[in-house]
Amino acid sequence: MSSPVFDKVAIIGVGLLGSSIAHAVKAYGGAAEVTLWDVSEDVRERAGKVVPGKVCETALDAVSGADCVILCTPVGVLTEVTALIAEGLLPGAILTDVGSVKARAAEDMAAACPETVYLIPGHPIAGTEKSGPEAGFASLFQEAWHILTPTKADAAYLEAVGRLTAFWRGLGAKVETMDPLRHDRVLAITSHLPHLIAYNIVSTAYDMESVEEGEVVKYSAGGFRDFTRIAASDPTMWRDVFLTNKDAVLETLGRFSEDLAALQRAIRWGDGDTLMKEFSRARGIREAIIDAGLDTAEADFGRRHIDPKSEG
Amino acid sequence: MSSPVFDKVAIIGVGLLGSSIAHAVKAYGGAAEVTLWDVSEDVRERAGKVVPGKVCETALDAVSGADCVILCTPVGVLTEVTALIAEGLLPGAILTDVGSVKARAAEDMAAACPETVYLIPGHPIAGTEKSGPEAGFASLFQEAWHILTPTKADAAYLEAVGRLTAFWRGLGAKVETMDPLRHDRVLAITSHLPHLIAYNIVSTAYDMESVEEGEVVKYSAGGFRDFTRIAASDPTMWRDVFLTNKDAVLETLGRFSEDLAALQRAIRWGDGDTLMKEFSRARGIREAIIDAGLDTAEADFGRRHIDPKSEG
Repeated sequence: MSSPVFDKVAIIGVGLLGSSIAHAVKAYGGAAEVTLWDVSEDVRERAGKVVPGKVCETALDAVSGADCVILCTPVGVLTEVTALIAEGLLPGAILTDVGSVKARAAEDMAAACPETVYLIPGHPIAGTEKSGPEAGFASLFQEAWHILTPTKADAAYLEAVGRLTAFWRGLGAKVETMDPLRHDRVLAITSHLPHLIAYNIVSTAYDMESVEEGEVVKYSAGGFRDFTRIAASDPTMWRDVFLTNKDAVLETLGRFSEDLAALQRAIRWGDGDTLMKEFSRARGIREAIIDAGLDTAEADFGRRHIDPKSEG
Repeated sequence: MSSPVFDKVAIIGVGLLGSSIAHAVKAYGGAAEVTLWDVSEDVRERAGKVVPGKVCETALDAVSGADCVILCTPVGVLTEVTALIAEGLLPGAILTDVGSVKARAAEDMAAACPETVYLIPGHPIAGTEKSGPEAGFASLFQEAWHILTPTKADAAYLEAVGRLTAFWRGLGAKVETMDPLRHDRVLAITSHLPHLIAYNIVSTAYDMESVEEGEVVKYSAGGFRDFTRIAASDPTMWRDVFLTNKDAVLETLGRFSEDLAALQRAIRWGDGDTLMKEFSRARGIREAIIDAGLDTAEADFGRRHIDPKSEG
């Protein structure tokens, strides 16, 4: 374990990401002390039982004396949360976040962040479909990209970016910096649209489930099941993502719908060549992802790890 | 291992499913002898090395003397393949298939199937995204549903359905019978639409990949990656599925597009309540799938089994 980058890291919002950061700091270092606070009394109580670090009763208690404050709330409340802790932030402290949208997140935090604090928005490309303080685990950030979207370029600010980079590298992440608008455009296709589509197909199926008398669930192993996993992600977090990355999501969704209309037309007119061409392209991008080490080639679709002894 | 249901099972088409049946019969029984044939000489040669059973040089050799013939080809060639083997089929033999579309499959096979043969279309709800004779494995059908869509109801026919049911149960499957049109409607939402959507989003991303300079692949862990796995499935098989289950797929796709338009409108107008309501519903159907034992609750989204030592 290397020497701590920060004396005290304060985590505001103790869901999957907040609790994972606490576990990761305990496992890999990065801060001498960790404090946590969540707006929900119930979450604070549960966090006290399972998350390493000191759970505080108020947000100001948590950030008091912290040289790094990490906001792990839905992006829709970043301004509000920043305002809540602003007076307690140490001059020279770093304020960062883990939100999936960066342009609006930067603006929202900047609106309430004191000038004396280094505001460095961030986003770990890591997660599971689970939520809540019990969902966190130390290795979540291992091998995952962590994107920082710096807002300034002076020497003192860049030194702070260096410290935050060292912190995340210590937790196992691969850190990159990126323009926030570019981040939001890339994530719109790699993350936001996939989630929207997954939520939508599950919703469509939900309405058909009553018509088909339970058979949608029963025969879900044919592909549908995989969408329900993604669609089990936290609704509040995702609502805020779509509301705050509206432009990039609508632009990407427009392209998706155009492409889908072309496939629909090919099906209606029996145009097998077009279908074949489009379906074959998909294999190329899958291979690129496997080549980049971002997934395993191991077959997973059949979920053969389900215990055969559980046969009903 | 129980006593064989069939003397000789002939498998026509040696891809993921054909080779898996051969492996499963070797592991769990069901037939005293297995023969295989594939239209591709290359596939026949590869099958000879890795798939248990006798790989024949012609389709007629393979079906000669077989009391059960299983067509494991794309659904688009079922008529052609049935015609190819028709003269070699034993009176009283069973002819079945594994196609994902059942109404058209039944018609297509019936067009060329002798009256003396029991035609019993079938569909195992099992698979992986892999293709080819090397992709097969014995446990693929364990715990999976296998749907039969019988075309007759006389005593001799039902006795044949009973034998085929016993065969699939022996390989570990849970067998149900179903009306073919109902099958096609249920599978349109549980399997066909999910694959179409996955192919489409990968295609949309492919076109954006050049704009975003490789960053779509790089940051694919945010959700997109999970779609590429499904979209890696065999293009020929899926082209045929969409062309032969056109009506049910277009109907389901229409519902999906309407629902997506409603979400799009909610995003554009900042209607967080609608988004929240739709996203929350999705959790319910996910829980139903886990409760039905069709998936594990274990988090998978982060793919934490990737070897941390492979960091670049």
